[in-house]
Amino acid sequence: MSEFRVRTTISYDGTEFCGWQKQRHEGRPSIQETLENALSKVFHTPITCVASGRTDAGVHALNQTVHFNAPRNPEGINLKMAMKSLLPPTIVMKKTWLAPPDFHSLFSATGKTYRYWIWTGPTPPALLGRFSHWYPHHLELDHLNEVSHHYKGTHDFKSFQSRGTEIENTIRTIYRAEWHFKRANLLEFRITGNGFLKQMVRNLVGTQLLMEKDSLPPDYILGILDKKDRKSAGWTAPPHGLFLSKVYYPRELDKKCLEL
Amino acid sequence: MSEFRVRTTISYDGTEFCGWQKQRHEGRPSIQETLENALSKVFHTPITCVASGRTDAGVHALNQTVHFNAPRNPEGINLKMAMKSLLPPTIVMKKTWLAPPDFHSLFSATGKTYRYWIWTGPTPPALLGRFSHWYPHHLELDHLNEVSHHYKGTHDFKSFQSRGTEIENTIRTIYRAEWHFKRANLLEFRITGNGFLKQMVRNLVGTQLLMEKDSLPPDYILGILDKKDRKSAGWTAPPHGLFLSKVYYPRELDKKCLEL
Repeated sequence: MSEFRVRTTISYDGTEFCGWQKQRHEGRPSIQETLENALSKVFHTPITCVASGRTDAGVHALNQTVHFNAPRNPEGINLKMAMKSLLPPTIVMKKTWLAPPDFHSLFSATGKTYRYWIWTGPTPPALLGRFSHWYPHHLELDHLNEVSHHYKGTHDFKSFQSRGTEIENTIRTIYRAEWHFKRANLLEFRITGNGFLKQMVRNLVGTQLLMEKDSLPPDYILGILDKKDRKSAGWTAPPHGLFLSKVYYPRELDKKCLEL
Repeated sequence: MSEFRVRTTISYDGTEFCGWQKQRHEGRPSIQETLENALSKVFHTPITCVASGRTDAGVHALNQTVHFNAPRNPEGINLKMAMKSLLPPTIVMKKTWLAPPDFHSLFSATGKTYRYWIWTGPTPPALLGRFSHWYPHHLELDHLNEVSHHYKGTHDFKSFQSRGTEIENTIRTIYRAEWHFKRANLLEFRITGNGFLKQMVRNLVGTQLLMEKDSLPPDYILGILDKKDRKSAGWTAPPHGLFLSKVYYPRELDKKCLEL
């Protein structure tokens, strides 16, 4: 039976999920199983989904890329509408494409952008509580940007890889890493790179906050990078401030995807 | 025993509450009782709170004004910090003042600003689902503003008062009523007036959406006002797009409030 590779962009509020992947001993559903259950109903057969990467419990996605194989041509189905009725309101299928068979959400990805939100107000935010880390301290925007400027480019980010699923090659290239105030009290960090290690963005954010707290000079971050030791860096910023914002693929592959 | 009048500004995500006031036959807690329970623990005596007005189930507040009488001088207490540990994260006490005894959150109020968020994207918003009404249709910004311009000023808004707690005097003055895109797909309506009838903002928004849908001329709204009949206006827009943004008090009264 021939299969059809489907590419899709999904968005989710990660608050009530145990992350992309199913965790043992975890009462909350995973985003993957929630999505797969809905797709399996649409196609009347079990569907397996592959994401561009796992997101941790509590982490959100503005645009996560996922692929799966459909047992029949999805061009005849209003997939987005069908999914809307089957998914909880906190997971939305935004776009779907019929993709070439060699499109792979994880292996074809050439880069990603993440955002991290920090609420700096004196009291916690009632409305943005699930979407931002409350850190009621003065943060020097210029200093934050001077630090992040230092790790732009190609570096060994081993010091920023959390334990768990360590991988061998810890060299990554960061194209962009900038801090700005989205509005008063809401600080946003945006980072784009060719790939990220486990909890790397949260470890970078946590380390930058610690450097602010201790008034460390911006180039202190270079020493942390040099040590290639997780213990040299700061803590892991909490998951609920993090958003997977965008996943990038080669232009030639994008062109071969036909929007459904 | 002398009492101390306390004024406070609170913010809440209304999603999981039955509104400001306790409802019978309603499983969810009210914001009022949640706040009163926390304050009663701090002051070791039952505290009753009065808000600038009730908000419906699902409606949010960026800045709701509340007053209560404390049995002892609250200047010695870090009230905001105490409340942070007693309130759920979806209710935040942002500011507190020692107010003059004649300060009354409801009767002293001279005006209010509300905001209403509409998500116009083709798919629902996973992250803003609890904070916006999904309305995936083309909306003409100029037309919306031409309509809202017509009801600025002093009018009888009886046609926009929902059933329930009808009141006699339905004349209100609207100082400002403007629509703008906060960003792509996120439309915001901001309205400021000296007072609002039950569900008036949601009825104005619902009526404007209906007028857009039916391509009615902007001055059609004047005919609806003239009829002074709820049936002449459109539907009630859903509660989760609405935010109580600000409550105004006379400057002399503001000056007499001492921030705690």
